[in-house]
Amino acid sequence: MKIGIVGCAGRMGRMLAEAALAAPGATLAGGTERPGADAVGRDLGEVIGRGPLGCLVEDDAGRLFAESDAVIDFSAPAATVLHARLAAQANTALVVGTTGLSAADEAELAAAASRVPVVYAPNYSVGVNLLMALTERAAAILGEDYDIEIVEMHHRHKVDAPSGTALGLGRAAAKGRRVALEQVWRKSRDGHTGARPTGEIGFATLRGGDVVGDHTVMFAAAEERLELTHKASSRAVFAKGAVRAAQWAVGRPAGLYTMRDVLGL
Amino acid sequence: MKIGIVGCAGRMGRMLAEAALAAPGATLAGGTERPGADAVGRDLGEVIGRGPLGCLVEDDAGRLFAESDAVIDFSAPAATVLHARLAAQANTALVVGTTGLSAADEAELAAAASRVPVVYAPNYSVGVNLLMALTERAAAILGEDYDIEIVEMHHRHKVDAPSGTALGLGRAAAKGRRVALEQVWRKSRDGHTGARPTGEIGFATLRGGDVVGDHTVMFAAAEERLELTHKASSRAVFAKGAVRAAQWAVGRPAGLYTMRDVLGL
Amino acid sequence: MKIGIVGCAGRMGRMLAEAALAAPGATLAGGTERPGADAVGRDLGEVIGRGPLGCLVEDDAGRLFAESDAVIDFSAPAATVLHARLAAQANTALVVGTTGLSAADEAELAAAASRVPVVYAPNYSVGVNLLMALTERAAAILGEDYDIEIVEMHHRHKVDAPSGTALGLGRAAAKGRRVALEQVWRKSRDGHTGARPTGEIGFATLRGGDVVGDHTVMFAAAEERLELTHKASSRAVFAKGAVRAAQWAVGRPAGLYTMRDVLGL
Amino acid sequence: MKIGIVGCAGRMGRMLAEAALAAPGATLAGGTERPGADAVGRDLGEVIGRGPLGCLVEDDAGRLFAESDAVIDFSAPAATVLHARLAAQANTALVVGTTGLSAADEAELAAAASRVPVVYAPNYSVGVNLLMALTERAAAILGEDYDIEIVEMHHRHKVDAPSGTALGLGRAAAKGRRVALEQVWRKSRDGHTGARPTGEIGFATLRGGDVVGDHTVMFAAAEERLELTHKASSRAVFAKGAVRAAQWAVGRPAGLYTMRDVLGL
Repeated sequence: MKIGIVGCAGRMGRMLAEAALAAPGATLAGGTERPGADAVGRDLGEVIGRGPLGCLVEDDAGRLFAESDAVIDFSAPAATVLHARLAAQANTALVVGTTGLSAADEAELAAAASRVPVVYAPNYSVGVNLLMALTERAAAILGEDYDIEIVEMHHRHKVDAPSGTALGLGRAAAKGRRVALEQVWRKSRDGHTGARPTGEIGFATLRGGDVVGDHTVMFAAAEERLELTHKASSRAVFAKGAVRAAQWAVGRPAGLYTMRDVLGL
Repeated sequence: MKIGIVGCAGRMGRMLAEAALAAPGATLAGGTERPGADAVGRDLGEVIGRGPLGCLVEDDAGRLFAESDAVIDFSAPAATVLHARLAAQANTALVVGTTGLSAADEAELAAAASRVPVVYAPNYSVGVNLLMALTERAAAILGEDYDIEIVEMHHRHKVDAPSGTALGLGRAAAKGRRVALEQVWRKSRDGHTGARPTGEIGFATLRGGDVVGDHTVMFAAAEERLELTHKASSRAVFAKGAVRAAQWAVGRPAGLYTMRDVLGL
Repeated sequence: MKIGIVGCAGRMGRMLAEAALAAPGATLAGGTERPGADAVGRDLGEVIGRGPLGCLVEDDAGRLFAESDAVIDFSAPAATVLHARLAAQANTALVVGTTGLSAADEAELAAAASRVPVVYAPNYSVGVNLLMALTERAAAILGEDYDIEIVEMHHRHKVDAPSGTALGLGRAAAKGRRVALEQVWRKSRDGHTGARPTGEIGFATLRGGDVVGDHTVMFAAAEERLELTHKASSRAVFAKGAVRAAQWAVGRPAGLYTMRDVLGL
Repeated sequence: MKIGIVGCAGRMGRMLAEAALAAPGATLAGGTERPGADAVGRDLGEVIGRGPLGCLVEDDAGRLFAESDAVIDFSAPAATVLHARLAAQANTALVVGTTGLSAADEAELAAAASRVPVVYAPNYSVGVNLLMALTERAAAILGEDYDIEIVEMHHRHKVDAPSGTALGLGRAAAKGRRVALEQVWRKSRDGHTGARPTGEIGFATLRGGDVVGDHTVMFAAAEERLELTHKASSRAVFAKGAVRAAQWAVGRPAGLYTMRDVLGL
């Protein structure tokens, strides 16, 4: 199975290429960068800090999709939308780890998913996806006496808040309670907020250092608290999970899948 | 439904009596203390810090069992064994929160449970019992790449380690892995321990201040950690749960039940 | 020494009255509530859940200040401003635990402090005030490679964010760095925030359950994090500290003091 | 300044060599491994995963000490004792990060320190050493109403417990209280422990995954807790600190120093 990586010279892209090379049963189809990027035309192996692989970094995503069984994309919303169209045209499975997509962007993913298998998840680690399943169950059992709060911390370079993973955890909690997250969320607090409404799902965001990603879901009632926490110590855990998702997706029916589908959670 | 409390003048006993008084559908059958204890012969309501209830603290546990539909016992192993026999003789349901029971003590509970319903749990809070269910599931899914460690903290007066709740969490983790806890546990570490064996379930114990009870189960792998934590901020949460268990037990068939049965987890 | 309590029938007021009664060398001068409140005219001892004290809850704060050596005020900004004037007129020491004061409100406190001793602190526990001192030192030593983030959690009834204590910790961190907090704070994050600016001091707020007050100051750099945390498990810790401050203040020169002055930190 | 690394092919040794190469004003004098080790005779640069440096890994520690201004040693107690003698003979500064040394081993370090500067610390990160200073101060201020507990977690390969850093934090706490750690420590708890004695300093040890090193010092009293935590996310933080210590030590008078001396804490 041939796996392609878009944005292969960035920090996450290099990890994805490494993980594809390391996965039994997979080979690296190639990698792309934006036209004009330094890495374009260089040997992909050298770009990711290994010996030469005999395969150059390209700037033609269309060709990458044509040559790959599955493509992994952890880039940015505007690029991801274009890649979704290329995946549908080339009949290539797509694994999306991009965060910050708008509702319109997500509609483009859904359109592609009517033609090819698309895995779209805010987080590809086994631990976070298990955390989502546990969060949904806890929210279903505990009821509204237990206030739900979600706090996350990421490194100082992250540009959006709350993280896509935190929102994914919020969605899992809301699903457990049979409500829509958008109707109960509170994404930050500042100033005179008033007392906390029953049923609210709150978020809090921390940024600093090189923290790969910490997430905690709290259920706080009178007299007791339950806290479910995930800590990632290396982005490699996301890269391995995305490659696992790519291997799972190839050969599936068209459809929009999550990492919980991949893991059978 | 009439609920009796053994050891009703102690810190936990007073909370249990309060919770029985507060529960809709329940009344307080009475309370006992050891022969010679200061509280014996005083009004039970005054002993627990309320106005008089017209019911005296007794030292005859046999009479309490005869007069109660269910008795709650958070005392000490030797007393609990005697109470199990009294429950069987009097055909009274029994709820046991005592910790530190030996295998022989537990056999006495099982013998009583062949005659009457007995609920026996290391912890009666909803949150802890949900934590046990989540722990079992996480252990089943994550496999042995994820090292399991359980850390607990209690107030400075607690005399045994690890806590009964920590051992209960360990048992839930072991069940998820289909092993016996006693074959894989490591209850403390000191000195030259060697590298951690795969499959081990480790415990660590902290004591200090007035901490009611904090428990964390960790699943630590390369690159990620999942941590599931419960924090109790008042013993009232245990008392309410024990009264709920008593109300659930009355009228059930004889048998040995856990709080997870009571909660349907 | 006679200590008066304004707002004596509320949750915090009752604790303050209890603490004043329990403190060696202090007596309770009396307590007030708003005109028309239920508690007015009732025996103060019964209002706080003890036997009668032979002293009625009043609605005339002026008289309370005249009869007290020190008055403790954990009420609301508008009331506290009035009390500051009464303290200056009556030559009575004042201990203020009210949070959410505006700059204009604080100017009123300062005006009173030119006439009488005023202790004004966001938090009266020993632990939090030590945390402030440790935070100031850590911020001074660590420099701007270490991103400072402050996260707090309080019960669901709290109406302002971040907590006064969190802002006090931020002020201590800013002082350690020799900057003004108002020039570097970020009180919440939501949406496209961009990368974290160097030097920023961030806040995050959680609300839920009956949490008395948890605060953490983080210093996050590449490769390491230092986290300094305080957890209060009972409001009694604040009441005891406020009474200690009142006893310390009586007889001091006029001036605006903090709890760190009281504790000699 | 020329810095030598003993045990340069191990995980920590490679990081130390990297850090010495990266430090302005320092050069890498060379590195050793045990006679017969695979790395002996190979180019040091290639062993640490860089291009060739033109310098071979040797098995003659005596020659390394003769050629270096300072040598860094994160090996094992038996080797460290030999290196201390070599340092004294060669008049070379020594930086020791080895843990698990016996009292007799430490006497050997002290003997060498009568001839040359020796830095000996359980942990070389800035954050941990600041944590030690904060711990000492907090212990001095808080008194025995605050129970001190120290909990640490490291990866599954660590062979001793508690960690040297945890013991160093315990020593800092004991110093703040003006007691000897060995008279008050409790290194683990298991079984019937009895109530916690006042003044005890407790330890708890967790092992799992690839955790680089987490340490928490708790001060737990009635109604409040103060917790001081350090989390290392990469061994590079220790390597950088050790190189900083080596640069600081060269040219100092003979003596036994700690990292707190190096940092001026």
